[in-house]
Amino acid sequence: MSTALNYGQAFALWRGAAPDWSAYTEHAFVEGLKDGSLPRENFLHYLRQDYVFLIHFSRAWALAAAKSETLAEMQAAAATVHALTHHEMPLHVKICANAGINAEELETTIESTANLAYTRYVLEAGYSGDFLDLMAALAPCVMGYGEIGAELSGSGGPYNDWIETYGGDEYQELCESVGALIDQAILHRLGTDWTKGPRFNQLNKRFATATRLEVDFWQMGLDRS
Amino acid sequence: MSTALNYGQAFALWRGAAPDWSAYTEHAFVEGLKDGSLPRENFLHYLRQDYVFLIHFSRAWALAAAKSETLAEMQAAAATVHALTHHEMPLHVKICANAGINAEELETTIESTANLAYTRYVLEAGYSGDFLDLMAALAPCVMGYGEIGAELSGSGGPYNDWIETYGGDEYQELCESVGALIDQAILHRLGTDWTKGPRFNQLNKRFATATRLEVDFWQMGLDRS
Amino acid sequence: MSTALNYGQAFALWRGAAPDWSAYTEHAFVEGLKDGSLPRENFLHYLRQDYVFLIHFSRAWALAAAKSETLAEMQAAAATVHALTHHEMPLHVKICANAGINAEELETTIESTANLAYTRYVLEAGYSGDFLDLMAALAPCVMGYGEIGAELSGSGGPYNDWIETYGGDEYQELCESVGALIDQAILHRLGTDWTKGPRFNQLNKRFATATRLEVDFWQMGLDRS
Amino acid sequence: MSTALNYGQAFALWRGAAPDWSAYTEHAFVEGLKDGSLPRENFLHYLRQDYVFLIHFSRAWALAAAKSETLAEMQAAAATVHALTHHEMPLHVKICANAGINAEELETTIESTANLAYTRYVLEAGYSGDFLDLMAALAPCVMGYGEIGAELSGSGGPYNDWIETYGGDEYQELCESVGALIDQAILHRLGTDWTKGPRFNQLNKRFATATRLEVDFWQMGLDRS
Repeated sequence: MSTALNYGQAFALWRGAAPDWSAYTEHAFVEGLKDGSLPRENFLHYLRQDYVFLIHFSRAWALAAAKSETLAEMQAAAATVHALTHHEMPLHVKICANAGINAEELETTIESTANLAYTRYVLEAGYSGDFLDLMAALAPCVMGYGEIGAELSGSGGPYNDWIETYGGDEYQELCESVGALIDQAILHRLGTDWTKGPRFNQLNKRFATATRLEVDFWQMGLDRS
Repeated sequence: MSTALNYGQAFALWRGAAPDWSAYTEHAFVEGLKDGSLPRENFLHYLRQDYVFLIHFSRAWALAAAKSETLAEMQAAAATVHALTHHEMPLHVKICANAGINAEELETTIESTANLAYTRYVLEAGYSGDFLDLMAALAPCVMGYGEIGAELSGSGGPYNDWIETYGGDEYQELCESVGALIDQAILHRLGTDWTKGPRFNQLNKRFATATRLEVDFWQMGLDRS
Repeated sequence: MSTALNYGQAFALWRGAAPDWSAYTEHAFVEGLKDGSLPRENFLHYLRQDYVFLIHFSRAWALAAAKSETLAEMQAAAATVHALTHHEMPLHVKICANAGINAEELETTIESTANLAYTRYVLEAGYSGDFLDLMAALAPCVMGYGEIGAELSGSGGPYNDWIETYGGDEYQELCESVGALIDQAILHRLGTDWTKGPRFNQLNKRFATATRLEVDFWQMGLDRS
Repeated sequence: MSTALNYGQAFALWRGAAPDWSAYTEHAFVEGLKDGSLPRENFLHYLRQDYVFLIHFSRAWALAAAKSETLAEMQAAAATVHALTHHEMPLHVKICANAGINAEELETTIESTANLAYTRYVLEAGYSGDFLDLMAALAPCVMGYGEIGAELSGSGGPYNDWIETYGGDEYQELCESVGALIDQAILHRLGTDWTKGPRFNQLNKRFATATRLEVDFWQMGLDRS
């Protein structure tokens, strides 16, 4: 992928230390989105699970607002929750409706184990830890989709709408602002020498585990499990 | 006060069962706001503490979003956090600036014990309990200010701006919608017979304790403690 | 299984409503323990993961102590955490050592997805919900092992020690006392008519999801995944 | 006080940075315990509130067990919760009974604001933060009583039993082991240079706030408020 992406310093370090990063961003599911070979029923299975995912993802950002230590952090997290619950989720309902999945079907989706593993891992990281634990666990999702979108942008094909949602300017700017939020939050809590203490490894591990769970999430889409 | 206020059924029950409700809504501090006899320095002391209060109040609403069980709950809580962090708090900073308290002074306010007792009680209720525990602990603040605003509206005097903020239509509608949110959340979790089980007493107790802490908060304003 | 087991009324209801209960208690892994056909390497894989599981299981019981509302609840939860951390876990280390897995290997076990899904589901249920959410999420593990132990007791074979740990009197009494604790906690919070309100379905769902994750856990042992 | 007390390095730093430390350990209530001049009714008021305090104090240590990151931390926290719920609290009930306060009276004690402020501050620190936030918030109570006990030991008088409970070897050893636990936990999470990062000031602030709330707690005993 392009090295021009500017999602911040912490993300760059975490990404570099996560063994499964390319297994995630270059997963067969992603390749199938790119060349259009992904069967539609797999995409629909993914969409349904992704709706359930978004519920818990929004809850995790709300928890980040609750665990904020500055007004700027609180505002950033609150804006994200607001955007997710008032725009992303209704949009998701609409996209699913267009794809033939009605709202009732969405609401009654049985959460797959891969979904449950990922979302509860993130939420528990947030409840047990602090704002940084949440950020390290949320970053693979936020920024990984940004990288994938940027990489696939322009591919066209049946999944073009999905691709350009994440490859477009708006989402890319979101990734940059979340990256800046994370760098600022680390500076505020751990200071400039943060990579020298044990917290660095702990956050690396959070990010790496969440990345592994993203791989499982794509695989769930492929297996329709 | 007027019985015309329509803040929902649960609130009406909780209010009726809280021994200190009138000690709160008719506190000497409130009387001083009404007739303008409250010394300005007491009002400024209150304003500074109220800014710190708003930080934790926003965090509590964010926690409510994290503990939501329906999209409607999540949207309502998220909208509240967003409004608090993007409008109320900046407005508060501006009001304080007009009153001669600059942003730095606000940020370095030492949290009074009454403030700390109240905000941590609410947050801990939320962390230890569920969405309803949070609502019962937040309701005295939200709706009590609504009642006070409605009661004092039209009094004029030096505190007219403050009074009309809470007595005005916008805030009154907020109280009505929070009341509806609470009634709906109770129905969703406890069903129609909820007043017959032990949870009714537990929630009554939450509301009553938060009301008592509101009394202490006004007293802190009066004592400048 | 024998209907003589007396693990309380709530457990009996939850068990009856969980679609995957027999898929869990009669899983191929369990059959392999019973007739001794389970390959040793699968058992060792399970043991390693079970050690990681016990860490989070202990944390969940500690959270239950933090979310207790009576001294009796707090004492019961505290005694369980104490027994887990001072007896079960050291015993597990010893069993693993006898099986050729040293302490360092145990500590560096990479948590499987099935393990992570289950433990974080339980902990998040506890953080987001209350004592009852925790109990409903913990019960399938506590009581399921009790049922399996009682069912397999006397089978002999290579896994006899494991079997008799759960089939023996001490563990059976633990299941009975946890069952009584749960019934008492429900009575305290929801009253006698608790099966008539929406909370009944929510707790059923918690128990059923945890049961499903137990099935995945056995399958992980079988697949060494 | 004697400089011979060995409650660890973090405690020594936190204590040195807390403006109200001597206002706490040399409070008029403490002086009254020492010279026996404290009216008995004030002591009984304190005892009743202290029972309620112990409930939440135990919950906070249980939360510490849930937020532990090593087996040693979990064992230490679990042992503390167990001792509190199985020995301290029953002992407290007995002491109160001897002082003429029966169990029912104890259970129906109305929590004072000072009590509520302190306990909820500690619990919220734990829920919002991590193990270290909890330790910094709990340390003033644990070690402050140790210092007071050591200082007052040998005074005799009507409060001798209370004094020697905290001045005795058993409690002094507890303080030393909690001090070692804290130092170890900091090393594990923040490394050797921890006093150079922003976390140092955050933990100082936690400790200082909890110390201030201890002063309020003694004052509550004096005022019977």
